[in-house]
Amino acid sequence: LPTLIEIDSDGHRAGVKPGDMQLLEIGKILGTNLRGVMTHAGGSYECKSHEEIRAYARRERDAAVRCAAQLRAAGLPCPVVSVGSTPTATFAENLDGVTEVRVGVYMFFDLFMAGLGVCTLEDIALSVLCTVIGHQPEKGWIITDAGWMALSRDRGTASQKVDQGYGVVCDTAGKPVDDLIVASANQEHGIIARRDGGALDMARYPVGMSLRVLPNHACATAAQHAAYHVIGDSARIEAVWPRFSGW
Amino acid sequence: LPTLIEIDSDGHRAGVKPGDMQLLEIGKILGTNLRGVMTHAGGSYECKSHEEIRAYARRERDAAVRCAAQLRAAGLPCPVVSVGSTPTATFAENLDGVTEVRVGVYMFFDLFMAGLGVCTLEDIALSVLCTVIGHQPEKGWIITDAGWMALSRDRGTASQKVDQGYGVVCDTAGKPVDDLIVASANQEHGIIARRDGGALDMARYPVGMSLRVLPNHACATAAQHAAYHVIGDSARIEAVWPRFSGW
Repeated sequence: LPTLIEIDSDGHRAGVKPGDMQLLEIGKILGTNLRGVMTHAGGSYECKSHEEIRAYARRERDAAVRCAAQLRAAGLPCPVVSVGSTPTATFAENLDGVTEVRVGVYMFFDLFMAGLGVCTLEDIALSVLCTVIGHQPEKGWIITDAGWMALSRDRGTASQKVDQGYGVVCDTAGKPVDDLIVASANQEHGIIARRDGGALDMARYPVGMSLRVLPNHACATAAQHAAYHVIGDSARIEAVWPRFSGW
Repeated sequence: LPTLIEIDSDGHRAGVKPGDMQLLEIGKILGTNLRGVMTHAGGSYECKSHEEIRAYARRERDAAVRCAAQLRAAGLPCPVVSVGSTPTATFAENLDGVTEVRVGVYMFFDLFMAGLGVCTLEDIALSVLCTVIGHQPEKGWIITDAGWMALSRDRGTASQKVDQGYGVVCDTAGKPVDDLIVASANQEHGIIARRDGGALDMARYPVGMSLRVLPNHACATAAQHAAYHVIGDSARIEAVWPRFSGW
């Protein structure tokens, strides 16, 4: 099996620490199966500023490039130098020596990335289309057919400055409306309310109306579905992209 | 379409409140399409004692049976009287007049139900089989190939007395080991640690070892997978039950 050695560039999860002599030991054991190095700066998800993300990007690139150089200096093959993470991919200023950037959320963006300042709400290219199925006017609730089974249980923005609940509610064109969020979710029911808990004119959201929900985490939300329905400027479905699931 | 009228037996989500004259109005509009009433005592998930769950079960049954009687007294058909919720189904003392109990988690049970006193850990019939893929000895971490994409993002026990993290770790026979829990999870990586954060003998958990994780919420975890692998007392897979997904 052609193999990449994982590098722990930020102490976030797993891999060989840069400078650790295990790198060469593993490289020698792999021999001709060695394909290169990979890292993922998952720590960048907790950054508070663009400058901090840029620092993570430097650290990520430097760790991968430095380990590749060590392997090559020992006469080992290292054609692949792979980095990851959506924040660092977006803000990296120098990717010299990197041959691959593995990013996931980057394709769609999501509310977590918007909260991190990596994108704006308008950049988010994935949403869940749902239908109003009821109201609880005295509670200020609009009830939909999209609960956490449709949106995922991911509440990533709960740890950010602005908690977006289970998602930001938009009209079918993708424009946020009335400062509505999915305030709570049961398995198959979403509960939409105003962010401030204030009163809502239920007549504007009749039963049967379609709404879109921008997700906290595009990966988690997309994994709840069998396919993407691709739309352009019109609401017409232009393609259906099946997902592969599992991992 | 044959239709059930949803009854809001506990103010938890949606439906017609018992005693509300809307019930008969809706029944009359449905006419021969009326098939009965249904309710789900979702509020029972927040109970603190068996007695409280029994009270929810009485309330759930009474609401459904009373609404059915009102419909019948008005000359409307009401063959189905349907109640739900795993806690109330387990502790109900009287289901007179109920024709259907819709329960989901009840089939498998899970850590949330164990935390609620509805079952024991030994009753939980669903787990995620995973493999040890690495260690971070200085952090006390065992790293596995089952992150939240395999376990789900459901952290239901976080609101209970005992927070089980992303799940309780068992040997392949399903017996909890060393008070280990999945303390944290990335998308494709699980991080196992002792509940008390204490040191771990990593040699007992070598790379390649199989472990089972009992889930917080059986519904959420099962939905992350395409099929159930059914095993009996031996570890042999006796059947593969495909899931239908979507809702």
